[in-house]
Amino acid sequence: MNEFDLIDALLADEAPLPSWVSTGPGDDAAVLAPPPDSEWVLSTDTLVEGRHFFPATPPDLLAYRALAVNLSDLAAMGATPFGFLVALVTPSLNPAWCRRFGAGLRAAAGDCGARLVGGNLARGPLAVTVTVTGTVPRGRALLRSGAGEGDGIYVSGSIGAALAARRLLEGDTAALATMSLDTVTDDLRPYLLPAARVELGERLRGIASACIDVSDGLLADVGHLCARSNVGAEIWLESLPAVVGVDRREAVVAGDDYELLFTVPEDRSLALPAGDLTMTRIGRVVQGAGARLLAADGEEVALAQAQRGWSHF
Amino acid sequence: MNEFDLIDALLADEAPLPSWVSTGPGDDAAVLAPPPDSEWVLSTDTLVEGRHFFPATPPDLLAYRALAVNLSDLAAMGATPFGFLVALVTPSLNPAWCRRFGAGLRAAAGDCGARLVGGNLARGPLAVTVTVTGTVPRGRALLRSGAGEGDGIYVSGSIGAALAARRLLEGDTAALATMSLDTVTDDLRPYLLPAARVELGERLRGIASACIDVSDGLLADVGHLCARSNVGAEIWLESLPAVVGVDRREAVVAGDDYELLFTVPEDRSLALPAGDLTMTRIGRVVQGAGARLLAADGEEVALAQAQRGWSHF
Repeated sequence: MNEFDLIDALLADEAPLPSWVSTGPGDDAAVLAPPPDSEWVLSTDTLVEGRHFFPATPPDLLAYRALAVNLSDLAAMGATPFGFLVALVTPSLNPAWCRRFGAGLRAAAGDCGARLVGGNLARGPLAVTVTVTGTVPRGRALLRSGAGEGDGIYVSGSIGAALAARRLLEGDTAALATMSLDTVTDDLRPYLLPAARVELGERLRGIASACIDVSDGLLADVGHLCARSNVGAEIWLESLPAVVGVDRREAVVAGDDYELLFTVPEDRSLALPAGDLTMTRIGRVVQGAGARLLAADGEEVALAQAQRGWSHF
Repeated sequence: MNEFDLIDALLADEAPLPSWVSTGPGDDAAVLAPPPDSEWVLSTDTLVEGRHFFPATPPDLLAYRALAVNLSDLAAMGATPFGFLVALVTPSLNPAWCRRFGAGLRAAAGDCGARLVGGNLARGPLAVTVTVTGTVPRGRALLRSGAGEGDGIYVSGSIGAALAARRLLEGDTAALATMSLDTVTDDLRPYLLPAARVELGERLRGIASACIDVSDGLLADVGHLCARSNVGAEIWLESLPAVVGVDRREAVVAGDDYELLFTVPEDRSLALPAGDLTMTRIGRVVQGAGARLLAADGEEVALAQAQRGWSHF
């Protein structure tokens, strides 16, 4: 068994490469032909075993999550996914593992058009680094920095669902090892198989003044957006679309939601197709700095510093 | 100390971002504006502690090597480096470490134009994944697949220098911990601070019929090129530009050279500016498959399978 057999297993069942892939896996680098008048959007994220995923996670679920959290960063930029690279570090490998890993990547890419164009295999403690690329029409990327005073603050979908799923998993990690893409139950999907809001991000171009994905925790991510926009924010506790069974005070700091959080100027209409995905107004942009969480009576809700979001390091 | 302080330390002393960086570090993703009529070249490579670098390696040397080996992949494509991303996994971090790491990245980028545009920090066993992007005029990338029967085979610089340096280091890893960018001696540079042949790669566009960088070992890399080009190769042992003190039979399988290995059709002139970098003709492309190493008398030199190149996995 050599690395080429492993790569072949990983690429098994891949459809023919689209025309914009001039050179795919197998050369020193991938070559991609972008659409004219586009800019390139690039992001990278690493999942480390035991820190970002449970050690028992099967390879298809691991691959799905590793790609999905990266696609979520592209969604937050309003980008259309393009090629992605996978740098896999793992203590051991076999073709069956690689085939399942490849299936997980394809499932996460879904119909968003993202294609595996290259990568790297290395021996070491299990970690997956995915680098995603996407395109936006020139000058149309959604940034964290465009929010203005008075803008409404919105979040897609619900928050806290990943927290609820993680709690279920923590109670039974043995069950995780036996799961596959097809057998993950709906209550576990928000954590194991998060849905990147790619289509929503594309639709928000020209509507949202600023956008970020909810990965560190809603309140922390509002704070990141505020910092880059030089504004403050009021978040209305009672408006937060927390899932049943999770307290809003927990959901607002839980993280891993991978919903889009965005601001919309008052004079723009958030005319999005209804679909299954709800949009909830949760606050407004104000002068100042930082995000304040307000109860129904207008009083600020105090949260311990330790609760204010995931620390990457 | 939070991650933002660490990122600030890593970005300290960065020059202002060039105009092609529409959005640099600090958003969900980087946004880059490519030159018109270009294609994008993308590669990623991970260095794992204890496997790809000595555990005592100081952060500036680690960063330099991590970026240089990636830039070498761009060089092999004839690409002009553009933005790069760094996904750093490490058990602990402090601002002084980050400042030195940043200095190493800038030193490796040198004057080739590559700029840090984004990345990720995560806690875990030390590993660095760099993703590099570059551009080539549309359709002009150097591939592994263009070699034709009769083409001359060339290599830049010398081979075996990294092997010699690694042997010196293996005898005294304690000394490594005290080194910095400024104090690495010339005999250790080929391994610790390899020079990516970016300018040579750009000049080989339109001249070389195929190209690869020598990372796995010259003979193995000739084999990779042959496999993609559906040809065979003769490599002339006595012509190999091995450094003094390293046997050519060792140098040809040593790896880590990061020189460019390329083929040139007989009717094209390899008219490259002389400079300091030598080009040596080391063989020719033939019908068939695989690379054969020939002694001066035309007899094939047998090498054990285990000697035929670095296994990534």
